[in-house]
Amino acid sequence: MGKTLAYKILENHLVEGTLTPGGEITIKIDQTLTQDSTGTMVYLQLEAMNIEKIKTELSVAYIDHNTLQTGFENADDHAFIKSVAKRHGVLFSKPGNGICHQLHLENYGIPGKTLLGSDSHTPTGGGLGMIAIGAGGLDVAVAMAKGTYSLPVPKVIKVELTGKLRPWVSAKDIILYVLQQLTVKGGVGKIVEYTGEGVKSLSVTDRATITNMGAELGATTSLFPSDENTKSYLASQGREKDYVELSADADAVYDEELKVDLSSLTPLAAKPHSPDNVDSVKNIGEIKINQVAIGSCTNSSYTDLMKVSEILKGQKIHPDVSLVISPGSSKIMSKMAENGALANMINAGARIIENACGPCIGMGQSPESGAVSLRTFNRNFKGRSGTLDADVYLVSPETAAISAIKGVLTDGMISGCNLPSIPEENFIPNDNFIVYPKGTNKNNTEVSMGPNIKPFPQNKNLPDELTATIVLHAGNNITTDDIMPSDSRLLPYRSNIPYLANFCFEKIDKDFSTRCKEAKEGAIIGGENYGQGSSREHAALAPLYLGIKFVLAKSFARIHRSNLINSGILPLVFENPDDYDTFSLGQKLIIENARQQVKNKIVIVKNIETGKEYRTITNFSDLDIEMILAGGKINSIKK
Amino acid sequence: MGKTLAYKILENHLVEGTLTPGGEITIKIDQTLTQDSTGTMVYLQLEAMNIEKIKTELSVAYIDHNTLQTGFENADDHAFIKSVAKRHGVLFSKPGNGICHQLHLENYGIPGKTLLGSDSHTPTGGGLGMIAIGAGGLDVAVAMAKGTYSLPVPKVIKVELTGKLRPWVSAKDIILYVLQQLTVKGGVGKIVEYTGEGVKSLSVTDRATITNMGAELGATTSLFPSDENTKSYLASQGREKDYVELSADADAVYDEELKVDLSSLTPLAAKPHSPDNVDSVKNIGEIKINQVAIGSCTNSSYTDLMKVSEILKGQKIHPDVSLVISPGSSKIMSKMAENGALANMINAGARIIENACGPCIGMGQSPESGAVSLRTFNRNFKGRSGTLDADVYLVSPETAAISAIKGVLTDGMISGCNLPSIPEENFIPNDNFIVYPKGTNKNNTEVSMGPNIKPFPQNKNLPDELTATIVLHAGNNITTDDIMPSDSRLLPYRSNIPYLANFCFEKIDKDFSTRCKEAKEGAIIGGENYGQGSSREHAALAPLYLGIKFVLAKSFARIHRSNLINSGILPLVFENPDDYDTFSLGQKLIIENARQQVKNKIVIVKNIETGKEYRTITNFSDLDIEMILAGGKINSIKK
Repeated sequence: MGKTLAYKILENHLVEGTLTPGGEITIKIDQTLTQDSTGTMVYLQLEAMNIEKIKTELSVAYIDHNTLQTGFENADDHAFIKSVAKRHGVLFSKPGNGICHQLHLENYGIPGKTLLGSDSHTPTGGGLGMIAIGAGGLDVAVAMAKGTYSLPVPKVIKVELTGKLRPWVSAKDIILYVLQQLTVKGGVGKIVEYTGEGVKSLSVTDRATITNMGAELGATTSLFPSDENTKSYLASQGREKDYVELSADADAVYDEELKVDLSSLTPLAAKPHSPDNVDSVKNIGEIKINQVAIGSCTNSSYTDLMKVSEILKGQKIHPDVSLVISPGSSKIMSKMAENGALANMINAGARIIENACGPCIGMGQSPESGAVSLRTFNRNFKGRSGTLDADVYLVSPETAAISAIKGVLTDGMISGCNLPSIPEENFIPNDNFIVYPKGTNKNNTEVSMGPNIKPFPQNKNLPDELTATIVLHAGNNITTDDIMPSDSRLLPYRSNIPYLANFCFEKIDKDFSTRCKEAKEGAIIGGENYGQGSSREHAALAPLYLGIKFVLAKSFARIHRSNLINSGILPLVFENPDDYDTFSLGQKLIIENARQQVKNKIVIVKNIETGKEYRTITNFSDLDIEMILAGGKINSIKK
Repeated sequence: MGKTLAYKILENHLVEGTLTPGGEITIKIDQTLTQDSTGTMVYLQLEAMNIEKIKTELSVAYIDHNTLQTGFENADDHAFIKSVAKRHGVLFSKPGNGICHQLHLENYGIPGKTLLGSDSHTPTGGGLGMIAIGAGGLDVAVAMAKGTYSLPVPKVIKVELTGKLRPWVSAKDIILYVLQQLTVKGGVGKIVEYTGEGVKSLSVTDRATITNMGAELGATTSLFPSDENTKSYLASQGREKDYVELSADADAVYDEELKVDLSSLTPLAAKPHSPDNVDSVKNIGEIKINQVAIGSCTNSSYTDLMKVSEILKGQKIHPDVSLVISPGSSKIMSKMAENGALANMINAGARIIENACGPCIGMGQSPESGAVSLRTFNRNFKGRSGTLDADVYLVSPETAAISAIKGVLTDGMISGCNLPSIPEENFIPNDNFIVYPKGTNKNNTEVSMGPNIKPFPQNKNLPDELTATIVLHAGNNITTDDIMPSDSRLLPYRSNIPYLANFCFEKIDKDFSTRCKEAKEGAIIGGENYGQGSSREHAALAPLYLGIKFVLAKSFARIHRSNLINSGILPLVFENPDDYDTFSLGQKLIIENARQQVKNKIVIVKNIETGKEYRTITNFSDLDIEMILAGGKINSIKK
């Protein structure tokens, strides 16, 4: 039986487990990447593990999220990451170099390798034929320390591309179409593997647009074969030596299949407020627009921006539109500054901002109240632009550029304008934004810790007797955003858990953090689906800092449950959900013989006030037990 | 008796009064400019005056301060200004076009004309031979409404330039030298007029650097003659027709004189935390630097940035330095994107950020804690960078660029490197960032008012008895930055005085606004040079909102004094400066028969607690008295 490309690469990296959906495997991680908003925590954790040398072939610390620097905090984070990178042999990419995923594609991605990144759009590397997975920061720290990563074995979806895109239709429209078909939950627990004749007509950066935004399917990752186009892309970056041909077996068996006829696609847009709320630009109609934003890790490649430049050349941006462009990397911007493409954009009235994530993560360029904003980005969640009542539409660079001129959402196919084809360029390698850790190590490099960077909170060995006061009795569907809000006001404090902890649960209960500090040891009672939403590790770290010992809920969201265990906080599920109602705020609880009970996987919680005992379901794996007894993952690794 | 150039231009524009120092004149204003952080208030005021048509020859509304847009507020301000500009016949310069002063020099400045701008660096236009004055926003609104502006007749200082600058010494070093000689108070009530052979060796943009930063002398404005260099600059911008030759009479008589031998100057730097704390780079020594920032209305001209590019070409920015460059205008950036200069900068590892004020006004790029930051800007007040404990040094672009490579403050003359000369370029006129008000007027244009735009506070008729509690006893050299901080956190609220007022004087006294609210009617005791620094009207409007009735100080900075009178707040000067020490916080003061005393121009303040009476100097003009009695300028105009 033939193999999928995904399983071939996983098999090559298998350390533990078998490749059967339903099980769990541990794989070797060749490369890691971090960005700065998750990175400070990753490197605080790496420091806490006290290792001698990282085990990956290559690890890179990028700065691309917090580059506005509207206070000392951002620059302090950059300085901290630079210093820790030096200590541990990690490459440091200075702010201004560009967006991590675009930079990694250009400079370091290698077909057939594995990449773990502390950013959900790490699958961009799949455009080069890598297994590139986004993960929590602690997982990335552990991957650097141990060289491995554990994950549930994914299923593989085949997406077969046939035909060829017409002018004004591009890679963004392909992934928008796939999102329309599979929805934002369609990829959960799966790798999306692209095959078929149509693949040959897509450049590596086209492919990277698709694998990048595959994150919006909820997929583990997305993957393209490595072929002649891959070879010429690597050659254009001066890295032909990194080329390996890779593809699935012709008779590979997939778990699911989707066929896409490229020649039938038209320009599409994801309407507010979800990336899978897709319709054709033609159907949506010529709505008036206030802002157009081009860039982000999805659509800021050289080819994307050259197409934009060609469309803007000699034209004038509509007076009612603010067009803002952020190139993906310094190399791209430099090339466009050499060949006149950037001048064309500026002359048309485009705003050029720094090579960084910028407006995609709400870091600047928030549109006006009630605005319609077209963006070439990957997410259009309500409020993500920084303007709560703005309507964000996700479109291709071509659609964005022609619409910026017209002042209304415009289907380029209907406009009748010609689109020139953009040849791939050769780039001159330039590492002037890279700080190498050569000659530096743990002993000759000081860690730079600005006043906003606080040590990472750590748990202790699980005691035999665990007592706690109920500090919150929460409802159903509590999100990680409820637990630890992460707006532009709090983002600069990602490295400062003691400060962040003051805002823990603030939307639900303003007194939560004060109450925890008084109680010293706390417990949370939760409803169904506790901890849903983003994978935010800080939603476990802030409660840890506040002394939360266990959460007793009707059910847990998967990633948050892992994050709690990683922090040594017990996630316990009511055996009888009706017990939920019998608790109230301020009551004292106790788990006797806690260590033995955890080992036995049956934990009984006693309410000291009522004397009543409650059986809970733990579903602990052996690894979970090890971590809980040690007081979290880092302590467990240090042993 | 020969005339100074300053008096020639003033005479040409005289509407009322006589040109004798000590008196007050009203002059015709040909042009106005606003930027967005003061502009929203200007246009709210213009709207409140309910005029039919503006009376200036040209008025331009620029957007350059609040361009980060970390929330909906900035874009709402832009939309508001654009809509009001359309209603009143004002040109609107879209965000991304660049910095108002650089843009005005390039596109609209005309020798011999008068320009009033709601930004303290409006004197930049003096480089073109204009009388260009920075004023409070209300003055600019009135200039648009009535076509005039009133000011005390300034004295004229002659600065005679001889010799020629050596390589690595440039216009910035000239103004730093002048600041060292005259100090930040040396220009108060004066126009600084540059003459002498040395003038011929300075291009218009060199001159504009000098007149721009002349604002730091506290001068009314600074002025260069209009000569062959002016002609060729205007020609390079496609505006040769705007050229007029202008100079002082050979036998002109000046009030003061300063001689500067250009050939004796060396690279200079203003040390923390004042622009007149000047020493030579050589004396300061090779201190380690963390950040270099190049740009701002002082040093972001084409020639400045070309010099930087030539220095950076083929070099690598020091790994420990973050070099950030913000070009002055879209035209400059476009030209540098065409001729490879921008690529040289990027390739060396420079961060390119939007054409805007940016880090100069603390709008992003705050350096790390305790950093040393070299900046080509005009102000290095403590905390202005957004990092309270950073040390900011003001230097020339040449010194900034060579230091960014070396990683330490570097004197280029000593470095021995050669500096190529940069020829003036011809620019192709491009108005794609400009929105013209053609065909629009008050009746066919709606005002766009986002939710953060609040009506501006208005005073009432001056009562007969003015009582107030001392809410602050401040020291010398209080800046408008001290009075109304304007960091990245607060800038988005420039259109929202009720919110801003909460942060009034917060760096000096955290309880100030609370104390004012309790006192209801407040008075401030100040030292020398109260209200120096930027022209920020909000430094009068926030105190107005908080109920401040008068400020009693040893002396006032000119623009702030006007802003106080415009708001109906009395600026009173101690007849005996030693009286300053006899006041203390919380004491109640009274001005009896206030209306009559103001009319008599002698105001006596009585301390109710001690019973002691204090004579004050008012120096009120008749117009001042009219405004104070009416409760501010708008009330006075509406009558």
